[in-house]
Amino acid sequence: MGEFELIRTYFAAAPCAQGGEGIALGIGDDCALLAVPPGEQLAISTDTLVAGVHFADPCDPFLLGQRSLAVAVSDLAAMGANPLAFTLALTTPTVSADWLQRYAQGLNAMAQRCGVGLVGGDTTRGPLSLTVTVFGRVPAGQALTRSGAQPGDLLCVGGDLGNAAGALPLVLGQRSADAVIAQPLLAHYWSPQPQLALGLALRGKATSALDISDGLLADCGHIAKASAARLVIEWQRLPLSVALLAFLGDDGAHAAALSGGDDYVLAFTLPPGELEPLLADGWPVHVVGRVEAGSGVALLDAAGQDITPAVGGYQHFRQAP
Amino acid sequence: MGEFELIRTYFAAAPCAQGGEGIALGIGDDCALLAVPPGEQLAISTDTLVAGVHFADPCDPFLLGQRSLAVAVSDLAAMGANPLAFTLALTTPTVSADWLQRYAQGLNAMAQRCGVGLVGGDTTRGPLSLTVTVFGRVPAGQALTRSGAQPGDLLCVGGDLGNAAGALPLVLGQRSADAVIAQPLLAHYWSPQPQLALGLALRGKATSALDISDGLLADCGHIAKASAARLVIEWQRLPLSVALLAFLGDDGAHAAALSGGDDYVLAFTLPPGELEPLLADGWPVHVVGRVEAGSGVALLDAAGQDITPAVGGYQHFRQAP
Repeated sequence: MGEFELIRTYFAAAPCAQGGEGIALGIGDDCALLAVPPGEQLAISTDTLVAGVHFADPCDPFLLGQRSLAVAVSDLAAMGANPLAFTLALTTPTVSADWLQRYAQGLNAMAQRCGVGLVGGDTTRGPLSLTVTVFGRVPAGQALTRSGAQPGDLLCVGGDLGNAAGALPLVLGQRSADAVIAQPLLAHYWSPQPQLALGLALRGKATSALDISDGLLADCGHIAKASAARLVIEWQRLPLSVALLAFLGDDGAHAAALSGGDDYVLAFTLPPGELEPLLADGWPVHVVGRVEAGSGVALLDAAGQDITPAVGGYQHFRQAP
Repeated sequence: MGEFELIRTYFAAAPCAQGGEGIALGIGDDCALLAVPPGEQLAISTDTLVAGVHFADPCDPFLLGQRSLAVAVSDLAAMGANPLAFTLALTTPTVSADWLQRYAQGLNAMAQRCGVGLVGGDTTRGPLSLTVTVFGRVPAGQALTRSGAQPGDLLCVGGDLGNAAGALPLVLGQRSADAVIAQPLLAHYWSPQPQLALGLALRGKATSALDISDGLLADCGHIAKASAARLVIEWQRLPLSVALLAFLGDDGAHAAALSGGDDYVLAFTLPPGELEPLLADGWPVHVVGRVEAGSGVALLDAAGQDITPAVGGYQHFRQAP
């Protein structure tokens, strides 16, 4: 079976792969064609997951399908973009009909949930890896970037932190836990929910935003650098799930929240006046700190003491899960 | 060195990576932002090259940089799109400053030649592979697709065929040849020239087009299928380079032209009246056959006898170089 048949057979169920809104031409030609309405820009992000580095191999292909798309779509959420489409570059050592079918099912389930259509890609033979490129639309000038944080802004996150990092020892089979603990952590790891609606709600309100993929400390460092400001995180304000606290204890849960990767929860800065209306509308906004003049990231304990660790965050070439 | 520093250090020299025409936001945020003028659509294509499958490993990283971008940009040429930008997902087992620098130099040289700017990507650890996604702009409704070939059209190609397939035994060190033969073949393999200008010239003229990556026979099969027509190729009309003929002989050169991959020369169908003006303007248009009613691809010898081989073209899961 050639690459074209492969792609068509297993990924044909992707929602709106042809003729979806904004998709002028989908899979099967030299290029896909996307329509971008006047006044809007196209947001683009690329993420690669490599077997043995970003996920255990073997793993459940359905869950991998979900996760490989979700981590990429999360970047659209972080820009406040409306999701539109994606391409998939799949490299696999063998063609397993069962594997491909289940992978495609997971991918398609997440595509449906996020409202993106598969418009193209490439299928090659080689060590298992997946590169997903996602496309979204955002009104010109309204994208949420990393560079607008202002002293006086609140530093916020969109939900519990550290769950995916907490799940890692479960994913790797290094530890086990009761279902009541394991289930929510594993769900967060395998099926992160890109905060697309929150990203849209933050347009015109947040002064900066990103999705937490490298850990809160490292990612706040990205905002601090891009905004030429200092981000202060308060240890006792970190939102932590009951499951994570039960699994890792207080210190371990905080460490996972600060330096674990793969949360795919939005972190953003907000002028204080924008907070109440968002909370009143029910958005999951948790204040975890503030923006000050200066540079870098500081972590303060309940007494206001600086307890910033020397190295924080996940560096792709420094360690593997 | 983190992934961000890595990307910035070695790929910062890419032309118009920030602020180029149509690039509203380049490397360094969660997404890049592209501006698409009203009335135009965005053309997108993704190509993956895997070490040991699509190129020998080790190989010259400068040449690999050129080639990895060129094969993707060639898809923009095939759609008649104006090149705009690209993303790079680079997976590499180790971080070698020398390798990255030379790879980036090759990539940037080809980016400059093609007029595309690097706007983002991902850098991950794992077995060496490169996924390039390219973006171009095309006026709505004017893209060259595979589906418009009409009986009576001429079947044309944009240049000599088979050179890259001829180069393969040289690339793999299986054969050697005098420089006068080896040089043009290797140049075609390592530094294919996407026929962007020809693609633009064919807008509104060609009824279908693609770039030849799987071999003329297989790729004509794609046009035939998409257009619900029969494509007839005439053996004696195939344009073959002096170097290829000298290296492989008449039969070998024809076989390379018909079933070898990686040409990245445009194949297209043209109403007969469109031929003369294009030739008069100096475009490299070679008539190699015609479109008829029916289906599939037929190869005819000089006497008009059908000599179509049973299997043609390169299938990614069927064979490796």
